[in-house]
Amino acid sequence: MTRIQGVPDLGPGLRLHLNENTGGCSPKVVEAVRAFDARGLATYPDYRAAVIETAAFLGVDPEWVVLTNGLDEGVLLTALAYLTAKTPAALVELGAPFVAPRQPEVVMAMPAFETYVTTAKALGARILSIPPAPDYAFPVDDVVAAVTADTRLIYINNPNNPTGQPVSKEGIRRVVREAAHALVFLDEAYHDFLGENFLDEARSYPNVLVGRTFSKAHGLAGMRVGVMIAPPAILEPIRFVMPLFNLNVVAVSALRAALTDSSFTSRSVAQATESKEMIYDACDRVGLRYWRSAANFVLIDGGTRARELVDGMIARGVLVRDRTSDPYCRNCFRITAGLVEYTKAAVEALEALCARR
Amino acid sequence: MTRIQGVPDLGPGLRLHLNENTGGCSPKVVEAVRAFDARGLATYPDYRAAVIETAAFLGVDPEWVVLTNGLDEGVLLTALAYLTAKTPAALVELGAPFVAPRQPEVVMAMPAFETYVTTAKALGARILSIPPAPDYAFPVDDVVAAVTADTRLIYINNPNNPTGQPVSKEGIRRVVREAAHALVFLDEAYHDFLGENFLDEARSYPNVLVGRTFSKAHGLAGMRVGVMIAPPAILEPIRFVMPLFNLNVVAVSALRAALTDSSFTSRSVAQATESKEMIYDACDRVGLRYWRSAANFVLIDGGTRARELVDGMIARGVLVRDRTSDPYCRNCFRITAGLVEYTKAAVEALEALCARR
Repeated sequence: MTRIQGVPDLGPGLRLHLNENTGGCSPKVVEAVRAFDARGLATYPDYRAAVIETAAFLGVDPEWVVLTNGLDEGVLLTALAYLTAKTPAALVELGAPFVAPRQPEVVMAMPAFETYVTTAKALGARILSIPPAPDYAFPVDDVVAAVTADTRLIYINNPNNPTGQPVSKEGIRRVVREAAHALVFLDEAYHDFLGENFLDEARSYPNVLVGRTFSKAHGLAGMRVGVMIAPPAILEPIRFVMPLFNLNVVAVSALRAALTDSSFTSRSVAQATESKEMIYDACDRVGLRYWRSAANFVLIDGGTRARELVDGMIARGVLVRDRTSDPYCRNCFRITAGLVEYTKAAVEALEALCARR
Repeated sequence: MTRIQGVPDLGPGLRLHLNENTGGCSPKVVEAVRAFDARGLATYPDYRAAVIETAAFLGVDPEWVVLTNGLDEGVLLTALAYLTAKTPAALVELGAPFVAPRQPEVVMAMPAFETYVTTAKALGARILSIPPAPDYAFPVDDVVAAVTADTRLIYINNPNNPTGQPVSKEGIRRVVREAAHALVFLDEAYHDFLGENFLDEARSYPNVLVGRTFSKAHGLAGMRVGVMIAPPAILEPIRFVMPLFNLNVVAVSALRAALTDSSFTSRSVAQATESKEMIYDACDRVGLRYWRSAANFVLIDGGTRARELVDGMIARGVLVRDRTSDPYCRNCFRITAGLVEYTKAAVEALEALCARR
């Protein structure tokens, strides 16, 4: 079969497999996209206004902000800047050895976002994969214990994808303090649904980078808009390798429009909250184990029926994400909690499948 | 001053400093962009159709194609895949040493596109910068002589940016054959204006990657659409590190629309050709040295007046690219040759400035 970039096509159906915003995006975004003319599309993007407005939205200085082509690009660039042989000056300043005696090390709690792993592998870093605590709780003691002089980068994904589990502020604080010579990449892609975040506090540490995306609550998944917030010294080696023009012009306008419509994100979060309760209730009724989630999706343990449920849901036009063969997710699948109307259809499909036994 | 991503803002004026298509892009592209609704913008991109159509447009197999977020991202990903300590399997197959005894090496003729340099530096590769032959001719003998067992990557930019000079097919062939264990990155960003390209022949070599962009003749600079064409084995490590969703959804639709309008690119090339002649004539009249260009821009030697001319052009609302302090470009500036109407204004400004002496 031809190898083509992107994710496998699951066919038509309700897209509940990629944690997109099933409610779309703000009409202000659509208006901004449709305003483009030929000249605008042919012109390289200018990021100044978007950076300043994003910084204001986040309550930080523009020097602390880089916009990325989705947060995926942010993860890639951070790995590239922090996992090569030479220790970045920003970490030497914080006490890291100037010349790494061994391979640079990356620490991540499992299950982890695939891009953390592939970028670290590509750069030849040593990956310390820390198994989760019971019920996917963040294994703070084990993460801290894994830190060595060679640790360059530690990922904390709060709340975690695909488990939906939050990390306590005290847990984050411990990692940040115990790994003072390493960069802590705090991935807050789903923070809108959690209702709290670490950004304000992060600004008081010299070794924390907060990653955000506009793909989820803001519904800009198709537009690829991420942002990284960190002290200028931490961003320096990232800016050095970052392509000069990463976000496209339409994404820049979409972002600026999205920032002006906070009511859209509030509605998205409210729908996700209601949808999650519907999913929990359905799982309770059919006897499936699940984990209450702080994000816009729910991880469900399908037990011995897992593959049958995944295939059945997809056959019924409800696309869910098969995680059954992922490490630490045996028998699990993930379902996006977005529009209540979609969740209703998903829950009906799940219940019908379970009733067939 | 606040450090903000992107290029310095030169103020309002005719944008002749970034080799954009001053004629915009095809109306079919605008139509495709304006067709998006909220759901479409909130959905992760699917690349299958765009890859297949791009492959057909190029006359290659879809497995040989990766779309990139501008060719800049392609350069970054290729460097990341080919300049880390471990030799990629694709090159070991071609005879490269399994474990590099020394630093991976990159060979590039000067003056070179800045991204070749920054990515190689970030990865700690040894950069062999080969000075140009007289009149910026591609220094094929010196490039070949610089190849060692540690060479991983060789850039050939045809035609070269910023000089506009073409590289002969025989020159390319020699490099490709003499560096059979290394990857030759043949950057054909400006090939539409050259009128010939190496793609058909490249397919018969196992070590050539052809890079293209839709930013120039197709006018998609704002959309960030690049494409890399290479044997599947060469693309393998690049696909491994490539973000799952790199081009955004609007860029994908824009690309597909652009592929259907070849009359737009023909008109762009015709305008560039006419504009270049106008620029040559003006330089002849005012006594400035220049190099006849195979691209959509002209490099001009401003001599002792260079900075005065650059500042004067910009002050008169004709934005040109200052190259006066770049290595091998002392006293030079670059001007985009696009719409004849724009070139007329640029030439008038240049002549007026020179008349003031």
